[in-house]
Amino acid sequence: MAVQRLTSRDIRSESRLDVVTALLAAGEASRNDLARVTGLSPATVATVVAELLGAGIVTEARITVGRVGRPTTVLSINADRGYLLGVDVAETYVRAIVFDATLEEIGSAQVARDEHVSTGEYVAEGVERAVNEALVSAGASRERVLGVGLSLPGLVVREATTSILVPEWTWHGSGMDAIRERLGLPMVVQNPLKAVAAAELWFGDGGQAGSMITLNLGTGVGAGIVLDGEILRGATSSAGEWGHTLLALDGRECRCGRRGCVEAYVGAPGIQATLREVDPDHPLAHADMQQDFIEAMAHSLASPEPDPAVDETLARTAYYLGSAIADLVAIVNPELVTLTGWTAWALGDFLVPPTREVLLAQAPGESALDVQLHVSTVRGNSVATGMAVAALTRFLGDVGLLTTRLPIGL
Amino acid sequence: MAVQRLTSRDIRSESRLDVVTALLAAGEASRNDLARVTGLSPATVATVVAELLGAGIVTEARITVGRVGRPTTVLSINADRGYLLGVDVAETYVRAIVFDATLEEIGSAQVARDEHVSTGEYVAEGVERAVNEALVSAGASRERVLGVGLSLPGLVVREATTSILVPEWTWHGSGMDAIRERLGLPMVVQNPLKAVAAAELWFGDGGQAGSMITLNLGTGVGAGIVLDGEILRGATSSAGEWGHTLLALDGRECRCGRRGCVEAYVGAPGIQATLREVDPDHPLAHADMQQDFIEAMAHSLASPEPDPAVDETLARTAYYLGSAIADLVAIVNPELVTLTGWTAWALGDFLVPPTREVLLAQAPGESALDVQLHVSTVRGNSVATGMAVAALTRFLGDVGLLTTRLPIGL
Repeated sequence: MAVQRLTSRDIRSESRLDVVTALLAAGEASRNDLARVTGLSPATVATVVAELLGAGIVTEARITVGRVGRPTTVLSINADRGYLLGVDVAETYVRAIVFDATLEEIGSAQVARDEHVSTGEYVAEGVERAVNEALVSAGASRERVLGVGLSLPGLVVREATTSILVPEWTWHGSGMDAIRERLGLPMVVQNPLKAVAAAELWFGDGGQAGSMITLNLGTGVGAGIVLDGEILRGATSSAGEWGHTLLALDGRECRCGRRGCVEAYVGAPGIQATLREVDPDHPLAHADMQQDFIEAMAHSLASPEPDPAVDETLARTAYYLGSAIADLVAIVNPELVTLTGWTAWALGDFLVPPTREVLLAQAPGESALDVQLHVSTVRGNSVATGMAVAALTRFLGDVGLLTTRLPIGL
Repeated sequence: MAVQRLTSRDIRSESRLDVVTALLAAGEASRNDLARVTGLSPATVATVVAELLGAGIVTEARITVGRVGRPTTVLSINADRGYLLGVDVAETYVRAIVFDATLEEIGSAQVARDEHVSTGEYVAEGVERAVNEALVSAGASRERVLGVGLSLPGLVVREATTSILVPEWTWHGSGMDAIRERLGLPMVVQNPLKAVAAAELWFGDGGQAGSMITLNLGTGVGAGIVLDGEILRGATSSAGEWGHTLLALDGRECRCGRRGCVEAYVGAPGIQATLREVDPDHPLAHADMQQDFIEAMAHSLASPEPDPAVDETLARTAYYLGSAIADLVAIVNPELVTLTGWTAWALGDFLVPPTREVLLAQAPGESALDVQLHVSTVRGNSVATGMAVAALTRFLGDVGLLTTRLPIGL
């Protein structure tokens, strides 16, 4: 039977993950704090902490708070346990970030990619270079790397310009073999949607919500979906491809080959296409670089001098985005929707209020009334952060502390 | 924290439900059979069976298979334990079905409703009459009813012609109080999407799939979503409203007030609207009754005499439906999609093959390649069947055998 059966071993495993998550969020905590935050019994917390201390993942210190009284034992994740790497292979760059075991960023490097070259060997070379440079910038030795989490779009294994996730992409092609050989480190592979969901779950508001959707807005767009604290992966790991659902039947051509996809309207090139419809002669209508275009939009929106074409483009984008979020709300009915990615960070302040109005008007009945919508509080590269979480999770599995929480790509 | 924490008590509860489900599916089974089918240990099965025997939910008989050998003990659900009622309140009728405890149908009744009257008192009166007539037809006494499962669309508590599910509808208005008072029986209330999902999960192919979506096609359309054996309810019980997601931005007016909803294209009135676009003068274009129209479509499609307008209507409907299923596949990435409801039963044989082609072409990458798409094997009124499942589940909770598997509306 395909349905997963949870055993008491899984529950112990989940308790360990809950304690690690709570400690990462809190920085320092007593056993009592951990019991309160996680809802686990003090006895369970004591057992789990002992296991984590034994594996060197947690350290303890005795401190005295105030001038009198007994010292308290304070726990924290052992920052010196080793390094975790999160790597974001995007269309135009590879970014590698080195974290210590508390998931504090301690170094990073970015390597530009020619988006027209997508052979496995080329990608592998870029990943290796970014990882090595990041390790140097962090002063971290390769021997002490606990794991690497690698986020890859589908283009690595499929020719063409599409970033559609192909279900089996982690297993295809020579690219993965090349990356594995070049790195020679324990690795876990996911797509960016699962990565941003993990980042939101561990470091954003996702941990507090029973159900949450994180929308990644950049060149492409997609949804990381978290239900009851678990990332929705789907039968073939391709859940969340909201960017390639229909906004308009037979509408704008999408780079995936379908017509009318959400991405063709609210991905950065889609927003620029909207501006070209509003005013084909606008100076920004043909800006060369996507990120420059989005930054210029934000600059114009923040300026006291109104630009009607930019304002109209924002209004239309909110209409498209709000309508497309309404569809997700109709199907999944989450508590919380957050926006992440560079488009969200640049335009979020302007985009969220009108998008919320559209969402309320378009979602079925009153189902959007209680939905929170805001820009994610997770900043920095949330894809890399999420992949470091995945690498840590894999490491916890490697040392026998977790069962099957995270399917491991490689 | 809103995330549910599973305890070992929940696991025992799930094991009991698994055994009951397996016994309902098998009819008769030995303890060994149950262990094999459920994946539970023989010891767990023995404990659970003892509990179910104690509560009178399961009976056992000793039979000898063949002419020699030791007799085997065979278990089955105790059909005489009492009755379960499933009630489908639809726009044009109330249908009540009486089941014995093995969920075999033993009687039913249907009461016509005037769809323009939706006061709580009117609906309550219809429900009471349908239930009473169904009990009479089954020769079942009210005292032996274990529970009633009632499926209600949103129109009960909202004026207007919309069937959009309003999240809090079970708690609003005088209608629910009136129904509760008139019936005076333990009750559980759900919407039709959750009911068809439960029916598919227990009696269809849903139990075998890790993730499954059942599309209910009738006047309205919607999706019952099952992930890892659990029905997706959503933060405010309104998940699955796929019928009110966008097929075409600013497209056809939907009765919900939004424009371009999936339902406006693949609900029965939407299919008729397509025929009117194809041939405004076609004899079926203005057929008065929806179900008559759909039956006439099916008749025409089955006849050796081709009707180009009907063929074109079917082709366009497959294009709309396949595109809209592709969106669900993109977001949820299920293993299995089944079609249910009277439109699916009438048109399914003609509709499924072209819809599958559209789905394959429109879903992201290769994510639809492994998706099974077919008409549900659950026949009869799957809404009522699903609600009887819900009533049984509530009853198991009432006698202390289940924890929180099913949120109970009332």
